[in-house]
Amino acid sequence: MTGPSTARPVSRRGLLTGGALAAGGSLAVAAVLAAARSGEPGVRTGEPVAAARIGEAIEPFHGPRQAGVATEPQAYAAFVALTLRPGTDRAALGRMLRLLTDDAARLTRGRPALADTEPELGLLPARLTVTFGFGPGLYAAAGLDERRPASVAALPSFRVDRLQPRWSGGDLLLQICADDPLTVAHAQRVLVKDSRPFATVRWVQQGFRRGAGVEPGGRTQRNLFGQLDGTANPRPGGPLETAVWVPDGPAWLRESTTLVVRRISMNLETWDLLGRTDRELAVGRRLDTGAPLTGAAEHDVPDFAATGPDGLTVIPDFSHLTRAHVGDDRLKILRRPYNYDGVPTAEGHADSGLIFASYQADVARQFLPIQRRLAERDLLNEWTTPIGSAVFAVPPGCPEGGWIGQQLLG
Amino acid sequence: MTGPSTARPVSRRGLLTGGALAAGGSLAVAAVLAAARSGEPGVRTGEPVAAARIGEAIEPFHGPRQAGVATEPQAYAAFVALTLRPGTDRAALGRMLRLLTDDAARLTRGRPALADTEPELGLLPARLTVTFGFGPGLYAAAGLDERRPASVAALPSFRVDRLQPRWSGGDLLLQICADDPLTVAHAQRVLVKDSRPFATVRWVQQGFRRGAGVEPGGRTQRNLFGQLDGTANPRPGGPLETAVWVPDGPAWLRESTTLVVRRISMNLETWDLLGRTDRELAVGRRLDTGAPLTGAAEHDVPDFAATGPDGLTVIPDFSHLTRAHVGDDRLKILRRPYNYDGVPTAEGHADSGLIFASYQADVARQFLPIQRRLAERDLLNEWTTPIGSAVFAVPPGCPEGGWIGQQLLG
Ligand code: HEM
Ligand code: HEM
Repeated sequence: MTGPSTARPVSRRGLLTGGALAAGGSLAVAAVLAAARSGEPGVRTGEPVAAARIGEAIEPFHGPRQAGVATEPQAYAAFVALTLRPGTDRAALGRMLRLLTDDAARLTRGRPALADTEPELGLLPARLTVTFGFGPGLYAAAGLDERRPASVAALPSFRVDRLQPRWSGGDLLLQICADDPLTVAHAQRVLVKDSRPFATVRWVQQGFRRGAGVEPGGRTQRNLFGQLDGTANPRPGGPLETAVWVPDGPAWLRESTTLVVRRISMNLETWDLLGRTDRELAVGRRLDTGAPLTGAAEHDVPDFAATGPDGLTVIPDFSHLTRAHVGDDRLKILRRPYNYDGVPTAEGHADSGLIFASYQADVARQFLPIQRRLAERDLLNEWTTPIGSAVFAVPPGCPEGGWIGQQLLG
Repeated sequence: MTGPSTARPVSRRGLLTGGALAAGGSLAVAAVLAAARSGEPGVRTGEPVAAARIGEAIEPFHGPRQAGVATEPQAYAAFVALTLRPGTDRAALGRMLRLLTDDAARLTRGRPALADTEPELGLLPARLTVTFGFGPGLYAAAGLDERRPASVAALPSFRVDRLQPRWSGGDLLLQICADDPLTVAHAQRVLVKDSRPFATVRWVQQGFRRGAGVEPGGRTQRNLFGQLDGTANPRPGGPLETAVWVPDGPAWLRESTTLVVRRISMNLETWDLLGRTDRELAVGRRLDTGAPLTGAAEHDVPDFAATGPDGLTVIPDFSHLTRAHVGDDRLKILRRPYNYDGVPTAEGHADSGLIFASYQADVARQFLPIQRRLAERDLLNEWTTPIGSAVFAVPPGCPEGGWIGQQLLG
């Protein structure tokens, strides 16, 4: 908690009075820590929690699978993509990931990181998760290219893409999510600081969903087009199991998954000029209830064959719903997107969009066919533009004392 | 809710089926609205609310004073500064403020704005407040310069300043705060869109504090240096009354206040190199408890005269606390700051700081003497740099049916 003192005016005095005060300070920190840890160790998710408990809620870090994937999405996320420095080889990666795993394991349970310079900001986990993703460059740097899942590579380019390097690629991804923005900021600071000897920051994307407790639990989030976004996600239990997690293979693949992150700008200017009906036809669902145009409630099964009096299908053949729909549970993807909302232009045009993030066992088998169909023809393309893209393997979790990446790099 | 249809592929179909679906859509929206409004009209602040009620909580918009000043700070804020377009004169300002007042009055009670293109995003107010501030340019544009409080003008420059035009000035400020980031984003979108005929966007600063319900109510927020920030604020009731609100004068001044917004970058790189003791001496308070160095608990009264064994004052004479301290209740300022945390540099250096926002009845009498003392000598200056600055009059509130600025412009 103390480092070399650089500030001239204070340090002389610090030398004089430092000892006594520093000791007092540490004791008081310990007391705060103890208080934070007393009582129940954590609040389970999904329960209706009293507002004051949101900060104390814990998502377990250790386990065969990483947290932050099947975890009920938290309100804030920072996606931090790093570029490995030349010389960060397999051994250095091991050191780096041991360190970052230790940070994540502590912070997610509401304890400051080792040598945390702002330990008081580490006491409220608010369901913090830190999820590690390995980009193609990490396998290359480790000399382990033969262990890289074939589809963990830059996606083929699609005609709708307007990708910018500043939002694309990355050797190592840290997906940091929590129900509190200060918790996310602090975790990001700690993890970036500890990464510096090994990597530079390539891009950071900060996003949000509804705040914790703002809507009754289990509700689907709305994006900045006002749409319910996430309705047809595979449910926990059966479908999610088979769609997301790799069931077998070598240790570095078993219980792993993959993550596609696409930054997609959403043109609110032209979208807002469109009538409600046209907007609902573009997706194939109602804006208010999220019901398919052939149904009445959000989770009604869409009837893609039903036709209207005009002889056309009620859900347009080129709607986002029809084009994105996947019947086979094993081929579904788990979407876990966040909204972003930057600063508008001088003329007041919004800089809004989606940090589209999807988890699937296999990018080539599950994600690519959907993305290909959408790029080919999807009414929504008129108002959405992919401006960033990156793909990561999400290695298995680790037990207490282990580290993320151990099965691959250890 | 419907506008001219621009998208070719959908609009033909929209024309065919538009009537029926649009009607159905509106009915359903009405149902959602009715549901949102049934039950109690709003949750009072300060009570421990169950998590699921955070979204429904309402801060009253109408009243003799504007909300968002003495209001217990919400978790998110967007400070939006506008530049009036040439030709936005007194009459146009009246039209603009009638429109924006109407938007604010609706959104703050969980109703979509008139012609809201994303009405579903307007249903959860989450204690939304919209606070209007008038910069010097607004008085000039209205031809009412003689009504401008003398100290509502650019601040004198201080030697610590490194002001950037992109964070400074502004004719009209919208301070948008809520306990939910989607609510803030939607309100920002509506208000910016409705401002466009009259003004351009000069700057937007987005900030955060602890999420709603993350810490037990009434706790002081922490900034990104890890400090408790807000301890010595004047309390509701007596001190806050006299410090913040103008008690008399013409109708456009009575129950008004003024707002200073300073963007202050906080250098985490050098701060983190400093030992805890030195950091505590720089401010004069403990990092863990926020207690003054002469006390044990956060709200203990600091003893600026107490000396240690070394004969020096325990709270250093050049500490932020000593330099900023104001004894006279009528001369205090109400600080209502938000943290900002941008994207770190490639080398991982944080872009963190404070959107320092203070309310006071009179900038010249209250804010300036403090700022002058701090600029002259304050140990904290070593790690903080003002990079933006703006001053606004915050006119009185308005009753139902009235509009903000009416007393000045009407
Ligand atoms: C900004 C861009 C996008 C927006 C605004 C958007 C919006 C939506 C909405 C409103 C739905 C219907 C409700 C739901 O099930 O969540 C939906 C469904 C879906 N979207 Fe997207 N989406 C976007 C991009 C994508 C991309 C890039 C993919 C994958 C390549 C994708 C895949 C899906 C899938 C698989 C479904 C579920 C279809 C079903 O089986 O019913 N979406 N999207
Ligand atoms: C990034 C810049 C700043 C930081 C990090 C900071 C931090 C703090 C902290 C930690 C305290 C002690 C706890 C409290 O009472 O809130 C404090 C007190 C105070 N600050 Fe600042 N501050 C900053 C800038 C300013 C500025 C620009 C002003 C006004 C010009 C100001 C005025 C005050 C006042 C009036 C107090 C209360 C002093 C007392 O009466 O005890 N601060 N500040």
